[in-house]
Amino acid sequence: MPDNKAVVYQGPGTVEVQGVAYPEFELKDGPGVNPANVGRKVPHGAILKAVATNICGSDQHMVRGRTTAPKGLTLGHEITGEVIETGPDVEFVKVGDLCSVPFNIACGRCRNCKEGKTGVCENVNPDRAGSAYGYVDMGGWVGGQAQYVLVPYADWNLLKFPDKDQAMEKILDLAMLSDIFPTGYHGCVSAGVTTGSTVYIAGAGPVGLAAATSAYLLGAAVVIVGDLNKERLDQARSFGCEAIDVSQGEPKDQIEQLLGAPEVDCGVDAVGFEARGHGAEAEKEHPATVLNSLMEVTRAGGALGIPGLYVTGDPGAADEAAKVGSLSIRLGLGWAKSHAFVTGQCPVMRYNRKLMMAILHDRVQIAKAVNATPIPLDQAPQGYQEFDKGAARKYVLDPHGMLAKAG
Amino acid sequence: MPDNKAVVYQGPGTVEVQGVAYPEFELKDGPGVNPANVGRKVPHGAILKAVATNICGSDQHMVRGRTTAPKGLTLGHEITGEVIETGPDVEFVKVGDLCSVPFNIACGRCRNCKEGKTGVCENVNPDRAGSAYGYVDMGGWVGGQAQYVLVPYADWNLLKFPDKDQAMEKILDLAMLSDIFPTGYHGCVSAGVTTGSTVYIAGAGPVGLAAATSAYLLGAAVVIVGDLNKERLDQARSFGCEAIDVSQGEPKDQIEQLLGAPEVDCGVDAVGFEARGHGAEAEKEHPATVLNSLMEVTRAGGALGIPGLYVTGDPGAADEAAKVGSLSIRLGLGWAKSHAFVTGQCPVMRYNRKLMMAILHDRVQIAKAVNATPIPLDQAPQGYQEFDKGAARKYVLDPHGMLAKAG
Amino acid sequence: MPDNKAVVYQGPGTVEVQGVAYPEFELKDGPGVNPANVGRKVPHGAILKAVATNICGSDQHMVRGRTTAPKGLTLGHEITGEVIETGPDVEFVKVGDLCSVPFNIACGRCRNCKEGKTGVCENVNPDRAGSAYGYVDMGGWVGGQAQYVLVPYADWNLLKFPDKDQAMEKILDLAMLSDIFPTGYHGCVSAGVTTGSTVYIAGAGPVGLAAATSAYLLGAAVVIVGDLNKERLDQARSFGCEAIDVSQGEPKDQIEQLLGAPEVDCGVDAVGFEARGHGAEAEKEHPATVLNSLMEVTRAGGALGIPGLYVTGDPGAADEAAKVGSLSIRLGLGWAKSHAFVTGQCPVMRYNRKLMMAILHDRVQIAKAVNATPIPLDQAPQGYQEFDKGAARKYVLDPHGMLAKAG
Amino acid sequence: MPDNKAVVYQGPGTVEVQGVAYPEFELKDGPGVNPANVGRKVPHGAILKAVATNICGSDQHMVRGRTTAPKGLTLGHEITGEVIETGPDVEFVKVGDLCSVPFNIACGRCRNCKEGKTGVCENVNPDRAGSAYGYVDMGGWVGGQAQYVLVPYADWNLLKFPDKDQAMEKILDLAMLSDIFPTGYHGCVSAGVTTGSTVYIAGAGPVGLAAATSAYLLGAAVVIVGDLNKERLDQARSFGCEAIDVSQGEPKDQIEQLLGAPEVDCGVDAVGFEARGHGAEAEKEHPATVLNSLMEVTRAGGALGIPGLYVTGDPGAADEAAKVGSLSIRLGLGWAKSHAFVTGQCPVMRYNRKLMMAILHDRVQIAKAVNATPIPLDQAPQGYQEFDKGAARKYVLDPHGMLAKAG
Repeated sequence: MPDNKAVVYQGPGTVEVQGVAYPEFELKDGPGVNPANVGRKVPHGAILKAVATNICGSDQHMVRGRTTAPKGLTLGHEITGEVIETGPDVEFVKVGDLCSVPFNIACGRCRNCKEGKTGVCENVNPDRAGSAYGYVDMGGWVGGQAQYVLVPYADWNLLKFPDKDQAMEKILDLAMLSDIFPTGYHGCVSAGVTTGSTVYIAGAGPVGLAAATSAYLLGAAVVIVGDLNKERLDQARSFGCEAIDVSQGEPKDQIEQLLGAPEVDCGVDAVGFEARGHGAEAEKEHPATVLNSLMEVTRAGGALGIPGLYVTGDPGAADEAAKVGSLSIRLGLGWAKSHAFVTGQCPVMRYNRKLMMAILHDRVQIAKAVNATPIPLDQAPQGYQEFDKGAARKYVLDPHGMLAKAG
Repeated sequence: MPDNKAVVYQGPGTVEVQGVAYPEFELKDGPGVNPANVGRKVPHGAILKAVATNICGSDQHMVRGRTTAPKGLTLGHEITGEVIETGPDVEFVKVGDLCSVPFNIACGRCRNCKEGKTGVCENVNPDRAGSAYGYVDMGGWVGGQAQYVLVPYADWNLLKFPDKDQAMEKILDLAMLSDIFPTGYHGCVSAGVTTGSTVYIAGAGPVGLAAATSAYLLGAAVVIVGDLNKERLDQARSFGCEAIDVSQGEPKDQIEQLLGAPEVDCGVDAVGFEARGHGAEAEKEHPATVLNSLMEVTRAGGALGIPGLYVTGDPGAADEAAKVGSLSIRLGLGWAKSHAFVTGQCPVMRYNRKLMMAILHDRVQIAKAVNATPIPLDQAPQGYQEFDKGAARKYVLDPHGMLAKAG
Repeated sequence: MPDNKAVVYQGPGTVEVQGVAYPEFELKDGPGVNPANVGRKVPHGAILKAVATNICGSDQHMVRGRTTAPKGLTLGHEITGEVIETGPDVEFVKVGDLCSVPFNIACGRCRNCKEGKTGVCENVNPDRAGSAYGYVDMGGWVGGQAQYVLVPYADWNLLKFPDKDQAMEKILDLAMLSDIFPTGYHGCVSAGVTTGSTVYIAGAGPVGLAAATSAYLLGAAVVIVGDLNKERLDQARSFGCEAIDVSQGEPKDQIEQLLGAPEVDCGVDAVGFEARGHGAEAEKEHPATVLNSLMEVTRAGGALGIPGLYVTGDPGAADEAAKVGSLSIRLGLGWAKSHAFVTGQCPVMRYNRKLMMAILHDRVQIAKAVNATPIPLDQAPQGYQEFDKGAARKYVLDPHGMLAKAG
Repeated sequence: MPDNKAVVYQGPGTVEVQGVAYPEFELKDGPGVNPANVGRKVPHGAILKAVATNICGSDQHMVRGRTTAPKGLTLGHEITGEVIETGPDVEFVKVGDLCSVPFNIACGRCRNCKEGKTGVCENVNPDRAGSAYGYVDMGGWVGGQAQYVLVPYADWNLLKFPDKDQAMEKILDLAMLSDIFPTGYHGCVSAGVTTGSTVYIAGAGPVGLAAATSAYLLGAAVVIVGDLNKERLDQARSFGCEAIDVSQGEPKDQIEQLLGAPEVDCGVDAVGFEARGHGAEAEKEHPATVLNSLMEVTRAGGALGIPGLYVTGDPGAADEAAKVGSLSIRLGLGWAKSHAFVTGQCPVMRYNRKLMMAILHDRVQIAKAVNATPIPLDQAPQGYQEFDKGAARKYVLDPHGMLAKAG
């Protein structure tokens, strides 16, 4: 059994790369593992050698101490890897397959999975519907910012790349299939983005940039991205987006300058609950700012895709209401405009095969759009820090040096 | 030119039946008419003799003084009538046709109309997208709780009943096509109601009962209706619904008793912004109660249909936030459950022909379900009062005594 | 290991009830088993004691000798039963569960299954996409007109009834969930049937009657069923359908008498490739009659649902083209009317849970509509004969006498 | 009243440019005008100065004598022009607006129009649902390969370009919005083309090339175009398509070489009823060849979009069945693969605004893809001839020399 190393949460502001247990076909007890999941057998699982495993903005919520994540939690839910061992119930996935792992863990056997709603699988998380690797309150499946990771229900969850060599040539792009590319795409699909749409995306972090990339892939005519971070706005401009600095004021006015009207067809929230205000309020947290401004700038009859994370409990929130996930939303405005709002985890499996095909046939350059930046696993702590400071990069950990070699 | 009489708003708590001008093919100045609409020519209009014209819960918001509706406003947007005159641009609607009038006024020529979003037509209301007859901030089209009313864009808006005599036999049912039946149906469709669904409908007023009727028509397995008003709950029980008295506590617990689990597939908000609390809070206004409880009782992966009205300005609201239509919503909970929220005016034309067919072929008894009660036009003030007190009735004004005769 | 008995095809016109092997968790060699499937391990399977197992019209195609089905084939793909043993990979289905088995066998792990297209699963039939129990060219999975049957991928395929006692009270209704009820429903959904639709269903056999029942459940205003068999037409009339005897001529004329216009909104083909002509041609096989007449009677902009079976090879066909599944179709007519045509096996899992809920909550009486008639397993040969002669019955085999006891 | 000149059909093989009547707001009698339409008032119409008016493949069916088109018919249904006069019922379209005219004439007031099915409008063609300018059996609306043309129901039908100068810079692209771009796009949408799809398009004429362009715009991974015409295949290659010469054999084999499997996700028929055979049969007409081969190459669970024209009567067809639009189709094969087939005229209004936005914001180069080639109106006869010979060009007539000037 080989050694294993992983990124482990050590309390607010700190992650460390440590030796951890090599995966077995069973969910062992450990920090954050739901008692009802302890000892769960995983004969349907596959053990993957992680080839690429990304740091995600939602990991930052935990590392900033904005959740109840326990010390000792192994992080990481954006995993791409090679199958090195399969459980006895795995029939179609084979050792040697290079695969993308959807960040949502799903059983493929419950009602929601059968309906394609793998983001709210009913069988993997005893706390509630929906799960993910290495995440607080998600059942305790061990995170994948590691050298090796266990993927349950492997035949259902894994997306195999058709050709391994071809895949390694585009591995940084394909690494985005585990989460942010489908998540951004889902935000756009939910917002109704299609050929010729005008789109406003709040947030130019990796999910926002992935949404912008997706909007173009879906045929959008104009893609406008708003953020407070100038470096990230430049990144958005690098692939053709219009960029709006919301520290300068409400996006409405700048949208009007760009389009001749203060409204877009579709709005995407790629920020979530740690939103800050616009204009003079940009230094303060205003968790409803993004949603309220999206209602303002989205045309009557339009829709809002909301892939940005909102939580049921936020101990670090600015006010009591926000601490239980309650936000002051201008619903009357949305109602007057007949808006639809689509929330929740992206059901990655609904999109990842399609997006893989687009990558493999050179129809999209997602790694470049999000500025995917491979770093060694041991540099994960620095990656977390720089990302937290607002680096316009998507950090991709390289646990076996395979990215360095591929690049 | 015949005389005309109509129901006119006289200030908070008061409506009167008065003589008013007979319609012409032009929108004249008057209370609540947007200046930009004054003098607008309506050659595409038809003048209808109102056969049935209903009092709506959304009229009550105005009459209770919860809006900025001006004194002198002619009320009424739920109109069924006979065409007695057509403008020169009307080609397919004919004098003598008996028709249902969608409460949303739509031009049939703008982008939204072409996309089927007639609830947010861009050409009829200078203030914003979307319009209705006799309603505050909706452009000033004269209300139809009257003997005669002008319907613009008649070829587009009017739904002709195929056979007049047959229609008069079911006229109370057909009178529900102008608003509440499609509105309730839209709420259910938006919430994903289909064959075998379990549904919770908040509110047992006419829209709630129409939603419950629609849920059954859509094949729902179990329809549960919640309200504070016992008489209305009895009305819901009369056609097979389960009924929950929310003055006794949160609907979740009672749903669990009924279904064996505390959740339904689909949630419908048929209450809107004047919601009261549940349990001990039932005497107070809590505008976000319904939405928050719907998120609690709707399963992960489900959707919320929100036909209940939320407004952008509510001068009579309990707090400052609610005065501008801002509510404290547990969005984190909805997000965790991947809920979709669909708001806004029902685009009546999307559904009214289908529902007419269901009525004409005896597939549904909507008038009975909502307890449609015809009263003479002159008794409109009493109708408003009784409805405001919570009568489990849908009052249908009978301006020409034709309902009395048909019944 | 208990004994096992099953209905076995003995050549054109003959079936026998014989002793057969008790199922094991492996697909053994035998008549009709694809060599590539021989020896396939089924650790994901469950062995069911068949409580109800129906004779299907598509079995008749084989028994009439219209296919290449080999002598010795165990028949039966409409299975409802109790789990008595589970393979080591089964996690959620439990011994004792009473379940409906979708006639399509699906792996729950391929692209098509993940997309909800379980009728064309890619992993169960080496010949082509799509499989079924006890059917020619479907991979060789053993049929379930038997006392015991193996269901592969049990966690994915089986639909558990929530309460066993309650289910046994409605077991004849629930027995229709394995095939004809979802199949009829799929035909209607594919044809666009919704609230208020007018529908013409060609064929009043069990699938046609199930389609008619589904049309009502979907809210159809008028359901018209056509057939040559007077007894079956009476059965259709028994639950409110209009019935057309197509031996009297083209359905168009009779539709006009019923509706005042010669067209319906939606057309459903519940006949398939062994169609006969209309009017004077009613004695002859005319395989394209139904499709061509559906194009005639379906309105411009409408759709045709085609659950009726069409085959790629029909050795018994009247002409050379039909022998390879080629029919002379008036596509020009369909094109002029912008028709959509939806063909293929019903993906049962898309609908069976919904329809189960409708049955359990008394929203539909499917057993009565199709005249479900339980008979002992030993009387299967008579059942096949009477059904072939046109009995207006759906025969349900009762291998353990449990239906007799339940009724 | 200015002079007017138009392209007029003179019998098989011949068109002439002649003086014709200047349009009035009434449909006058003339060749091909349905008697029931003669004298129809058009106060809702606009008279357009044609800026660009294209020759279409479907015009060729008439000019080749494959229809019952009468001598003297003014041709042309792909019109882009400037409004120079409006009828009294026109409210939103203004003189001076530069607009695209959907080739389907639609009233905007019937059930089908309200449902977005403008290709089968019920009010404009007394013969059947659906109409077009200058086309046989379409009601008799005068064709627009002319200097001036009447567009009925102008507020509904016309798509205004937001900025006239900007539009003139892209006028050759925008000229494709009247028919072939939406038609190709509709074929792809109907076939289920989306991000990552593999697509086979039969036919590399203008509609096929427009479909290929649309497939890329919709995000397709691989677009393969088949034809017998090498020049057209080169045109397809010019913007990245794979090209298959079907004179070399069935497309299946060449698809397998390209993709590693003999199937694609989506099939589009951009050929229609004048199809020729594949391989050795390429010299002969085989009207069902395309459909049968699409069923072969489209994967199980896939769909076929069929924008290619199939007719109800083809006096020039090779056999009796084809003369009445009946084709020998391998429906059994399609059924086994659960194919859906979507036929009919493209409802242009469903797509043209979106595609206009994509053009105006440089997201697509449709004119280049189809090799749009402006020629003077007087050279229409040569254009028809060269196009009929298989020129890989889309001829755009330039009745006022405005294209020459704009280019």
